Amino acid sequence: MTDAVAMPHFSIAEPAHDRDEVIRARIDSRTKPPGALGRLEALALQLARLYGNERPQLQQPTMLVFAGDHGVAGEGVSIAGSAVTGQMVRNFLEGGASINAFCRQSDMALRVVDCGMLEPLPTHPMLIDHRLGAGTAPLHREAAMPDSAVARGMANARQLVSDLNDAGCNLIGLGEMGIGNTTSASALMAALTGLPVQACIGRGSGIDDKALLHKQEIVRLALQLHADASGDPRRALAALGGFEIVGMTGAVLAAAERGMGVLVDGFITTVAALVACRIEPAARHYLIFAHCSGEQGHAALLEYLQAQPLLSLELRMGEGAGAALALPLLRSALGFYNDMASFEQAGVVV
Amino acid sequence: MTDAVAMPHFSIAEPAHDRDEVIRARIDSRTKPPGALGRLEALALQLARLYGNERPQLQQPTMLVFAGDHGVAGEGVSIAGSAVTGQMVRNFLEGGASINAFCRQSDMALRVVDCGMLEPLPTHPMLIDHRLGAGTAPLHREAAMPDSAVARGMANARQLVSDLNDAGCNLIGLGEMGIGNTTSASALMAALTGLPVQACIGRGSGIDDKALLHKQEIVRLALQLHADASGDPRRALAALGGFEIVGMTGAVLAAAERGMGVLVDGFITTVAALVACRIEPAARHYLIFAHCSGEQGHAALLEYLQAQPLLSLELRMGEGAGAALALPLLRSALGFYNDMASFEQAGVVV
Repeated sequence: MTDAVAMPHFSIAEPAHDRDEVIRARIDSRTKPPGALGRLEALALQLARLYGNERPQLQQPTMLVFAGDHGVAGEGVSIAGSAVTGQMVRNFLEGGASINAFCRQSDMALRVVDCGMLEPLPTHPMLIDHRLGAGTAPLHREAAMPDSAVARGMANARQLVSDLNDAGCNLIGLGEMGIGNTTSASALMAALTGLPVQACIGRGSGIDDKALLHKQEIVRLALQLHADASGDPRRALAALGGFEIVGMTGAVLAAAERGMGVLVDGFITTVAALVACRIEPAARHYLIFAHCSGEQGHAALLEYLQAQPLLSLELRMGEGAGAALALPLLRSALGFYNDMASFEQAGVVV
Repeated sequence: MTDAVAMPHFSIAEPAHDRDEVIRARIDSRTKPPGALGRLEALALQLARLYGNERPQLQQPTMLVFAGDHGVAGEGVSIAGSAVTGQMVRNFLEGGASINAFCRQSDMALRVVDCGMLEPLPTHPMLIDHRLGAGTAPLHREAAMPDSAVARGMANARQLVSDLNDAGCNLIGLGEMGIGNTTSASALMAALTGLPVQACIGRGSGIDDKALLHKQEIVRLALQLHADASGDPRRALAALGGFEIVGMTGAVLAAAERGMGVLVDGFITTVAALVACRIEPAARHYLIFAHCSGEQGHAALLEYLQAQPLLSLELRMGEGAGAALALPLLRSALGFYNDMASFEQAGVVV
């Protein structure tokens, strides 16, 4: 929040499709009935476009969990108070959360980005300080953040993702923690898709009917107040977003700029992916959707993005849990692509 | 096919439910919103029942691919001829098939059981000789096999699974290879569930409309011919089954008898699970359904068994592919159960 930074522009090219025929021919000549590996075949095609058609490999897949607090959290839109954001991030750093368990099982590195929690935490090797403030302003009363915070948050994310890529990482997972952030995400979804407010709002971590109605009312108020921002994804982010949603949006754009894959988790991360695709539509090609959560709005948003997630385990978790759980499927898609014999090699004659 | 063996009786107890409250309390006290890990919570409960509520672990998970040939394969019910069964099994032994790639990625041991392919293969460390014959008889003209083959196949499977368990394995995956076996599986499903024949029959590895109608006709003929066998799962196996389906049925029963988990793959393995549950209903508690395939009949059969598979990736593969792909989710379910902090440990106050 010191010096102003210019709003970053991301140069994103579509992945080259000139090897698609070679990739498809390789998939089709493996020893299996045509198309028999279903969605893993489409996944292998996407990954081979990103990582090359000759032995494509995931390198240093890294989960980035973006954390931030929300002014709207004081309004009774969550089952927990803002203090839980910091408590859970501390839990991440101590290795006790579900994202730790799942990253361990999936052999995925984990970093946590403080984009603006209420209170900063002591320095920690897993923790990255990208603080844009001590929580956003309540989005139904004023803009969640100034435009300058959006610019700075995107620049921060670009630096982080570029550094990871320079060190060899070619895939990031997106995760988040921020009490109140389903409210912000629902407002962004409604503003950018034009879908009815009710279709965009769910129970988050588990609010009751009364709190759900109140959450809908808050989002309606916010959308009225910031109606002029809804056409522009960056202005919508400033008006309705969260610091962690800005960070994830920047991370998607930066990863796409670098040709890296992005494993998208649940509702909040999918909203960040939506914002990124509104800013640069070519970013869509770098996204791999991991999980369809139980959160109202997520299925509709995935359909809007024409995304078919790999898993549907009824998680309502956040943290990047679904993305970490889906990572082995990416490895298996590359495993079949790289390691299966062809009909010719195996002497199988159909 | 030498000495007669008695039809084995399997003594299967329901897993004890007396620790369910302790297990549920552990799950609910982990640092996550209640129920937020969705289907993984039910999976953790099931696994903790099988493997104990204190640090349950998978040990030496082993994929067993059961192979056999089918007399009905000569009738134009498949895209490939029976020779492909042996060619693909050779491919498994050489490491070039999708099940090899997926077992490698999922760190799962792999054994292949020849239950009765047309031709025996040379001995190989991964290959187990449980041959019941050189392919079954065509099920629409006569019984696929004598009752004695069912008894022998089940006894063989019990020996194999017991030996694995004695060596420390506590989870098997079921896979299969056998050109023509969707016809046999569809006939068994129709005979044992009473569902309409059309609902039980799909395109297997990819037959066209004409072959599909022919396959339906073959199954109708077989069901008429063996109408008196349809009430008894063992007699239905002899009349309509395949040697590999007998092996898998025996493996399910033997694993349940030993308290081991069984990861069920696609349509054919689910039919074997159905037959096993008809013989001993308590076997159902040991089954973990990995994948809902694109094969017509599979979704209906899963519903009949009140099973919700973990994955739905539109595989039409067999070999155990879906089961190997699902194994990391079992590890992650145990990972969260064993390694997550409680709210108290983490100092998270909701």
